[in-house]
Amino acid sequence: MTTVVEPTPAGPSPRPRVLPMSPNLALNQRVDERRAAGEDILHLGFGESRLPAFDGLVDRLVAGARRNAYGAVQGDATTREAVAGYFTRRRLPTDPGQVVVAPGSKPLLMALNLVLPGDLVIPRPAWNTYAPQAALAGKHCVSVPIPAQAGGVPDPALLRETLRAERRAGRDPRTVVLTLPDNPTGTLAPPALVRELCALAEEEDLTLVSDEIYRDVVHDPATPFLSPCEVVPHRTVVTSGLSKSLAVGGWRIGAARFPADERGLALRANVLSVASEMWSTLAAPMQEVARYAFSEPPELRAHLANSARLHGVVARAVHGVLTAAGADCRPPTGAFYVYPDFEPLRPVLTAKGVTDSPSLARELLDASGLAVLAGHLLGDDPGALRFKAATSMLYGDTPPLQWESLRSDDPLALPHVAEKLRRIEEGVRRLVS
Amino acid sequence: MTTVVEPTPAGPSPRPRVLPMSPNLALNQRVDERRAAGEDILHLGFGESRLPAFDGLVDRLVAGARRNAYGAVQGDATTREAVAGYFTRRRLPTDPGQVVVAPGSKPLLMALNLVLPGDLVIPRPAWNTYAPQAALAGKHCVSVPIPAQAGGVPDPALLRETLRAERRAGRDPRTVVLTLPDNPTGTLAPPALVRELCALAEEEDLTLVSDEIYRDVVHDPATPFLSPCEVVPHRTVVTSGLSKSLAVGGWRIGAARFPADERGLALRANVLSVASEMWSTLAAPMQEVARYAFSEPPELRAHLANSARLHGVVARAVHGVLTAAGADCRPPTGAFYVYPDFEPLRPVLTAKGVTDSPSLARELLDASGLAVLAGHLLGDDPGALRFKAATSMLYGDTPPLQWESLRSDDPLALPHVAEKLRRIEEGVRRLVS
Repeated sequence: MTTVVEPTPAGPSPRPRVLPMSPNLALNQRVDERRAAGEDILHLGFGESRLPAFDGLVDRLVAGARRNAYGAVQGDATTREAVAGYFTRRRLPTDPGQVVVAPGSKPLLMALNLVLPGDLVIPRPAWNTYAPQAALAGKHCVSVPIPAQAGGVPDPALLRETLRAERRAGRDPRTVVLTLPDNPTGTLAPPALVRELCALAEEEDLTLVSDEIYRDVVHDPATPFLSPCEVVPHRTVVTSGLSKSLAVGGWRIGAARFPADERGLALRANVLSVASEMWSTLAAPMQEVARYAFSEPPELRAHLANSARLHGVVARAVHGVLTAAGADCRPPTGAFYVYPDFEPLRPVLTAKGVTDSPSLARELLDASGLAVLAGHLLGDDPGALRFKAATSMLYGDTPPLQWESLRSDDPLALPHVAEKLRRIEEGVRRLVS
Repeated sequence: MTTVVEPTPAGPSPRPRVLPMSPNLALNQRVDERRAAGEDILHLGFGESRLPAFDGLVDRLVAGARRNAYGAVQGDATTREAVAGYFTRRRLPTDPGQVVVAPGSKPLLMALNLVLPGDLVIPRPAWNTYAPQAALAGKHCVSVPIPAQAGGVPDPALLRETLRAERRAGRDPRTVVLTLPDNPTGTLAPPALVRELCALAEEEDLTLVSDEIYRDVVHDPATPFLSPCEVVPHRTVVTSGLSKSLAVGGWRIGAARFPADERGLALRANVLSVASEMWSTLAAPMQEVARYAFSEPPELRAHLANSARLHGVVARAVHGVLTAAGADCRPPTGAFYVYPDFEPLRPVLTAKGVTDSPSLARELLDASGLAVLAGHLLGDDPGALRFKAATSMLYGDTPPLQWESLRSDDPLALPHVAEKLRRIEEGVRRLVS
């Protein structure tokens, strides 16, 4: 049989440092623990659209279930055609040869970090994965505060200053990530602001990574959307995916669009090289789903429109509750988040020991069972009284309730939605009184 | 509307260097191109088990098709229980808390590269992804020739020498990858050899990454299998997956088992940190498949046994063809590869301009339409006359033929298998005559 060698006593090897879990996922775990201990918690800290999968998507997954062979690293030709059509319909004429599909936009963003030269600039606050990915790729990452108008983009004047300062410090900022619409603020940068950033990108020779995974979750279809890729197509990579707009985060389907010029295609080839070593390919049955979804048949468009409307109605309601209590908060126009700032209420909060974003999130959880993601976990100033709340957690805890929310003309009047909204209202009132 | 800024003339930004595609995937593309041009090619260069998906697996994927929510980064508790049972049945008592499931073992190996300290040692030849992953993670990687007995492990004496030499050169080799059974040689390191490597790992304080994705593709169930994790469990991480044994490479399902001690669990936590930023989670419907597969119900065990038997019969037949023609070749005992060495035929080959592994692979492709993976693409000495051939491409080009191969008592007698085998025989005869 086998000889089992006993573990040697702790030798000279250093004990590995334990890296942090992505903070939203860590918060999930904490919520699960407290719930297991019997606490009743309203979890507003996770960026998931809590809606069921659309039947047409499930049908495609089932139809693809026998596809067991490895597929092409870049994705099926027909799937990439559908993605190219998706972008082309959004004023970004695209050839399938510019597209890569992948198991989520997360690995695509990681691959970009691994192959793009130079350092990274991200907005502050931003989605909690941009900075850790840059660190894993050995990149220096600096964040620039967002302007008052909207999140997801660095304030242009501050960006210019930061680029200068970084270069003076010997760093080499070359890529800026934009999030349109934005996670965590739930706002969409207006076209004039996007143009300003694009002009700056030209001046400063920057590559833009435009994370447009929330693009189909703009609440009002009349809201003007300008992708930086329409303005500076040769220096913009667009990433997208189905996790948010179609509530299939658990299926891991993402896509990226690269510039059509020689440098863009070389960048794509490099991303494919990383993909071939890091994840091989999007799962074959999911290629079927992606082809269907990105081709946007009428029934799916209707579902997307209903979803975006629901996200808007509920996000605006939560925004109303927060501003009524005295918080500052940009009105949400996209995604399913609000990002309030309780600075106007600092004196009241200080009196009860709430002085920064960690204590603000803790107070809401301890006093009212409301789990939110504290602003500092999104790269924001820890001293600021800010947090992100995912309003998509209000649609109901079961598929039938979620379908009811989606189909209702007045979702706020549904008891299961109204009850959660009332709970937020009470929690916020308790916080500021 | 939008202002389209014309691309600026090539500025000071350097044109990005184009990184290579994983060579097996690059060969696929070349084969596709030549086939599109009308050539009839027998593609032996891709490490895929060309068999259909087992019905029980497809049923589980369909059953899980409505699971659209993000799951836990480490995988469902029930899926990890099944994986723990799988390892426990293989003399590796495992708690679900030691397990991580992921979209393939490839991302798990990449995450290990990102979090394990020090440099990497791999066998020569080895699977073509180990070295590029190390490079992406910023690690130095050195390869050590395999011994005559079997591939998948470095020769112990040469490994010891290499460790010394690397340290003298200021490097810090800390991790060794083993492949049991091996890709590309199709052989399984015998227990005595594994013990020797484990003793060396103790002496030299090395971490072992034991890639056991071909473990259930040992041809003869009586062949003794010793995992280094049975010998030095505190310093061994085992990776596995369903792509090879169950022919579902296109589904992307992998798993890893970490040591149960404090350092092992810290390493697991670090891999989960990377996972949370790099891929989030294994797709939820695939968690259902993984739970079923790793729990190994009787019908699936029978299918696995049939598959392993077929792989063995065909690999041995191809081995017979190669050695009959005068090549050296380790007898295959696992996986679905042979790795011949045409050194004994060098004089004959030199006469026709075949002098190294690139020209050997080219000659087989040009003269006989046989696509194989040249040894240098697997890290081997380019001057050696070696290549890898995946014998799993002989089972038939359609699911009915593949099922027939799998169910046959004498697959070599089936016309669709015999024809391909004859084609290899003719190609090899043409090469050496």
